[in-house]
Amino acid sequence: MSVTAAKGFTAAGIAAGIKAPLANGSGGNLDLALVVNNGPRLAAAGVFTSNRVKAAPVVWSEQVLKGGRVSAVILNSGGANACTGPLGFQDTHATAEKVAEVLDGHSAGEVAVASTGLIGIRLPMDKLLPGVEQAAAELSEHGGEKAAIAIKTTDSVHKTAVVTQDNWTVGGMAKGAGMLAPGLATMLVVLTTDADLPAADLDTALRAATRTTFDRVDSDGCMSTNDTVLLLASGASGVVPEAAAFAEAVRTVCDDLARQLIGDAEGASKDIRIEVVGAASEDDAVEVGRSIARNNLLKCAIHGEDPNWGRVLSAIGTTSAVFEPDQLNVAINDVWVCKNGSVGEDRDLVDMRYREVRITADLAAGTESAVIWANDLTADYVHENSAYSS
Amino acid sequence: MSVTAAKGFTAAGIAAGIKAPLANGSGGNLDLALVVNNGPRLAAAGVFTSNRVKAAPVVWSEQVLKGGRVSAVILNSGGANACTGPLGFQDTHATAEKVAEVLDGHSAGEVAVASTGLIGIRLPMDKLLPGVEQAAAELSEHGGEKAAIAIKTTDSVHKTAVVTQDNWTVGGMAKGAGMLAPGLATMLVVLTTDADLPAADLDTALRAATRTTFDRVDSDGCMSTNDTVLLLASGASGVVPEAAAFAEAVRTVCDDLARQLIGDAEGASKDIRIEVVGAASEDDAVEVGRSIARNNLLKCAIHGEDPNWGRVLSAIGTTSAVFEPDQLNVAINDVWVCKNGSVGEDRDLVDMRYREVRITADLAAGTESAVIWANDLTADYVHENSAYSS
Repeated sequence: MSVTAAKGFTAAGIAAGIKAPLANGSGGNLDLALVVNNGPRLAAAGVFTSNRVKAAPVVWSEQVLKGGRVSAVILNSGGANACTGPLGFQDTHATAEKVAEVLDGHSAGEVAVASTGLIGIRLPMDKLLPGVEQAAAELSEHGGEKAAIAIKTTDSVHKTAVVTQDNWTVGGMAKGAGMLAPGLATMLVVLTTDADLPAADLDTALRAATRTTFDRVDSDGCMSTNDTVLLLASGASGVVPEAAAFAEAVRTVCDDLARQLIGDAEGASKDIRIEVVGAASEDDAVEVGRSIARNNLLKCAIHGEDPNWGRVLSAIGTTSAVFEPDQLNVAINDVWVCKNGSVGEDRDLVDMRYREVRITADLAAGTESAVIWANDLTADYVHENSAYSS
Repeated sequence: MSVTAAKGFTAAGIAAGIKAPLANGSGGNLDLALVVNNGPRLAAAGVFTSNRVKAAPVVWSEQVLKGGRVSAVILNSGGANACTGPLGFQDTHATAEKVAEVLDGHSAGEVAVASTGLIGIRLPMDKLLPGVEQAAAELSEHGGEKAAIAIKTTDSVHKTAVVTQDNWTVGGMAKGAGMLAPGLATMLVVLTTDADLPAADLDTALRAATRTTFDRVDSDGCMSTNDTVLLLASGASGVVPEAAAFAEAVRTVCDDLARQLIGDAEGASKDIRIEVVGAASEDDAVEVGRSIARNNLLKCAIHGEDPNWGRVLSAIGTTSAVFEPDQLNVAINDVWVCKNGSVGEDRDLVDMRYREVRITADLAAGTESAVIWANDLTADYVHENSAYSS
């Protein structure tokens, strides 16, 4: 289903030869995806990495999105086209021009570009540009699945999600398995909808949704140069949904995809749901949640199924949130192992055999809360990120 | 030599039974150290963790240091006495009282206490208090080495350093092998000098030294609840050194010990020297250096001997330092693999076989600089911190 679940969209995923073919031959060599909005509306919104070192396609697409119209998105895996200088930007520009050329009646200024892969390497344009022609030739209303596969890098599975309501749909695809952190993660996400809404409404819904979903997954604390989340509307359903219903549908799809990213993070054996409650403000809750999420010692302990709440407290202690150390409470999988900043219930009661681990940190300073998702730190993560450039 | 290199100090390191005896029997079961200042002067200064969740001995010793006089320091491994509530604080108080009792003429209010080990566990006072008596009985002018051994936790070696000049000496011992981060590291450090200086002068020299040494090692980004660095002066040399010479001696000893901490960090296979140059301010240089030091993906790459400069740039991009992305330059082991934010010299020229790896990040925005030391991220680190509570 993916990006072609909503009416008015076609997509394709092909093997252009940008990535080295995988030995297992499991379709892992798809590396170029094209998503086309066939209208009647071409409204779009986008959210991009807050990293100040931005890849060429991010710089390009931010400019495209200012117009609020996107007719097509071209995405490649196998190379991030980041830190490639003016020539790298020319490659992105040439890619958009090629898409406009092969799709009749399109303008390069309405073609968004996204790339993912190794930083600091030029893209093989001699393979990419012919790939654009092939992708255009294979565009289909059933192409969403292959497009989702083509944007994978170290992802073990492709990620899609769909919500349908009252004859309109929001669907999407995502990739991302490492360098996942607030301000978005190394993620490429394309959402499509056949709801009939202008760009400003899409922007409002998308920013609200990413703030509490993609912005609150933190697999490894690292922020990418290429993060891109796009929402395209075709208006093909002819339906103008209520703002609240639409916002909720976008949030649901984003939340689903964000959870899939965490569930497939590089080398992870645990998904850690960190809920900070009793905070004086939502900002405090998020700051504390991120500090816990990024504590390598805690991430190792969770990997070892060790309910080491001392490491939770030492992470909280590095933040500027409102709290008193002797009023902090921490539960791991619902056992309150730390009460009033000291020893609580018996840590041997904590059952950590399952993939999902829930940490609840009660700051006892207010009524605000936030949830951050993280992963454990494993030898497999080290291996996957040290054994080769990625 | 250690803390007894300077005249006027005695020390001891004994096995009180706080830690479980090690199977290899290599003296690793020493777990209680006592350092006594025999005067004639009892001046002291201290720097403590900036973690807001502070262990009981930190709360106690901060209070003691306000008086500027320390007659003895008692340090235990085998338990951090952190997050142990009011009873934990009573344990620290009782330890200081015991030291004052067994050392004739001492006052508990001048006895500093330091602890290291697992958070959230009460200390076995039935073993610790008799241990104080034993340690006092074994005090010697040659006891510095055993004291340094007794404060080890996961340290593979004990750490000492000494500088002697013109008949006065600064010496010291340190422990720390994980949870090493700015604001100090899980480190316990005791420095002694026989220079004849008041507490205020010690404080100035100690703060200046820690700011550019212990505060700039970042093994794993985690900040401890127990970090303590103490400097005690006996005045026994009768020499009042020049302020600059004394400051430099303290800095040299701190730098030496800090490098030993990085060189012995848990599971590390590389020591990474990150020098940020061309910064608009020293604060910018430190912020960028820490961001690079804490990037897990880069730490994995260094472990894999992969000169992955893209990960350096993506770390720099998350900071608020003054720079233009297309003017950044990065060298790894002196090969400028990134120039002007893009591909530079051939990365295959980078030789990363040795333990020390040098990363130079040039922000091209000014003339300030800073050096941060870090370690790589390894499967051994994960194993050591997940296989058991520590």
